[in-house]
Amino acid sequence: MQPRFEFDIHATDGAARTGVIRMKRGDIRTPAFMPVGTAATVKAMRPAEVRASGADIILGNTYHLMLRPTAERIASLGGLHKFMGWDRPILTDSGGYQVMSLSELRKMSEQGVQFASHLDGSRHMLSPERSMEIQRLLGTDIVMAFDECTPHPATHEEAASSMERSMRWAKRSRDGFDSGAEHAEVAALFGIQQGSMYEDLRRVSAEKLIEIGFDGYAVGGLAVGEGQAAMFGVLDYAPAMLPADRPRYLMGVGKPDDIVGAVVRGIDMFDCVLPTRSGRNGQAFTHAGPLNLRNAKYKDDSGPLDPDCACPVCGQWSRAYLHHLIKAGEILGAMLMTEHNIWFYQQLMAGLRSAIAEGRLTSHAAAFLGRYKGGE
Amino acid sequence: MQPRFEFDIHATDGAARTGVIRMKRGDIRTPAFMPVGTAATVKAMRPAEVRASGADIILGNTYHLMLRPTAERIASLGGLHKFMGWDRPILTDSGGYQVMSLSELRKMSEQGVQFASHLDGSRHMLSPERSMEIQRLLGTDIVMAFDECTPHPATHEEAASSMERSMRWAKRSRDGFDSGAEHAEVAALFGIQQGSMYEDLRRVSAEKLIEIGFDGYAVGGLAVGEGQAAMFGVLDYAPAMLPADRPRYLMGVGKPDDIVGAVVRGIDMFDCVLPTRSGRNGQAFTHAGPLNLRNAKYKDDSGPLDPDCACPVCGQWSRAYLHHLIKAGEILGAMLMTEHNIWFYQQLMAGLRSAIAEGRLTSHAAAFLGRYKGGE
Repeated sequence: MQPRFEFDIHATDGAARTGVIRMKRGDIRTPAFMPVGTAATVKAMRPAEVRASGADIILGNTYHLMLRPTAERIASLGGLHKFMGWDRPILTDSGGYQVMSLSELRKMSEQGVQFASHLDGSRHMLSPERSMEIQRLLGTDIVMAFDECTPHPATHEEAASSMERSMRWAKRSRDGFDSGAEHAEVAALFGIQQGSMYEDLRRVSAEKLIEIGFDGYAVGGLAVGEGQAAMFGVLDYAPAMLPADRPRYLMGVGKPDDIVGAVVRGIDMFDCVLPTRSGRNGQAFTHAGPLNLRNAKYKDDSGPLDPDCACPVCGQWSRAYLHHLIKAGEILGAMLMTEHNIWFYQQLMAGLRSAIAEGRLTSHAAAFLGRYKGGE
Repeated sequence: MQPRFEFDIHATDGAARTGVIRMKRGDIRTPAFMPVGTAATVKAMRPAEVRASGADIILGNTYHLMLRPTAERIASLGGLHKFMGWDRPILTDSGGYQVMSLSELRKMSEQGVQFASHLDGSRHMLSPERSMEIQRLLGTDIVMAFDECTPHPATHEEAASSMERSMRWAKRSRDGFDSGAEHAEVAALFGIQQGSMYEDLRRVSAEKLIEIGFDGYAVGGLAVGEGQAAMFGVLDYAPAMLPADRPRYLMGVGKPDDIVGAVVRGIDMFDCVLPTRSGRNGQAFTHAGPLNLRNAKYKDDSGPLDPDCACPVCGQWSRAYLHHLIKAGEILGAMLMTEHNIWFYQQLMAGLRSAIAEGRLTSHAAAFLGRYKGGE
């Protein structure tokens, strides 16, 4: 029988680790990339196609789902897994980030955030308690604590104040999660470290989270415009502040080279809209870097997107065909580009896992990054 | 070994027939519905998904493909089958219909049609010879003769004049097709009967086509706004004017009830954008008639689109989920609605084939039409 939540580390290589998170709905091989399924769908992919790419877990967005079709409706229809047809683990964010970036007429207080829906202007509230309730209604496997997204850049004082509030909300999230006893028996709760770019605040945040106690820990407040160098600067110390025997999750990251650098620094889980969104926009990730398939130079190119890719798209269709589909605005273009990109990310993670298991992450990462260019 | 083109009729029931067209790239069970793959893709479906629905053949549009990516480019990339990843038969239209409905600055003459592309204004020409050349470059299995689409309504004089020109073009199409000896050894050529709503002109047209000689015959110039009653009026006599041992193809038809009525009247092949286009617009075909999934009444409906449908969509997802996807503008909504609709059409054809084979088409058609309503 699968445990509620168990993290087995099979091997380490420097700060990097590989292993498996075991949950009721299935195993999650780490380091893991979670495709983003914002509105109860990984855009342009069927669940079986997501699974075939090697994904063990997907991410859903609390903010989007609470507004449409609503958490209550999903609950009455049997939960998010049944609703969308994905029977493996789902992680949902808390809604905290998107309520700040997408909603209108926000009013922040110690209690939470009051806001108007970006869809229809209807009034809603998100708080630690309400976020826990929504994620419970969805039937989420990995629940994220509700926190405040510290703006970037932030002064030390601003970052400290925001982090302190997030830590109070982390405790309220823990209590809210635990009050849903039935769900808490099958789901896990992750806390989120804040502290902006300040090492002392990151340490305080980590200590407070550890005192509360979570199944896993996210490094929050990164990928907010600080750039890769600054992000890696934080990742040089932040993961080590979190319990070594718990999964570490870097939210909203990132480009393939971001992921490689973060895995080297001890991160176990990632999510990002980049492979899906870029795919819909005509960008393909390849071992030689991203390609923009809108470029006319591909119109007669009979080769695959990436000759070293094992995905069904590269096995069947040419760059010329994908260029044609994208230029013609065909839905199949978005479907195939997304499928390839999700496979590329999953193959990236599988390669990193093997390299860690075999103690050759340094050379593997150098080889990958040496070949991978930032894009055309 | 598969023959170039052979039509075996296995059973008849009244005017209706069921059988199989055998071609180099595979068998086509008749009556057959051909999903439309306008721009080298059946919109929102992968070829394997189209095939899984039961489709034996798809249709491509000469007009669209000659403009983008161009027939020459497709030929240099190995032909349409390889380009799009569909290895079974493809029928292409001649471009005659769409050059009249979509292009700009048309100039008609006995030679053909000069026109400007609706995409970029570039100048092109379509004639019987050029249409045959394009369909040869594409590597089409069933080539359609280039004809003039008679406007509706047309006077007897207008219809006669237009039909006579189409018959001269049919002969030039035959000659053009035969001049491509290598392609003519593996492909088939269909003539198109014209004559608008006039029985005497339909008879003249049929006689002229038979004199030229074709592998199959289309009833053209219908589904142009005349309505179902007028269309059935023509189909009460027109199919019988065409050789009984050759397939009869009703171009651009139609709604499920149109297809049932046309099969009863002796038609063997159909194509229509309705299942794909309607799917993208949120309309699902079901045994109880079309449903508009945008309707708010489906937001809590946990049932499948059609409880009597064997498609993968009805086996997995609820009306509530599809309603959500469509309201949210999700690509997966277009994908799943299209897949269901194409399956619905293929199941419709399979049901008609079985009924004809078992001599119960009359009761089968009555039962289907009795349950099927025009839509909400």
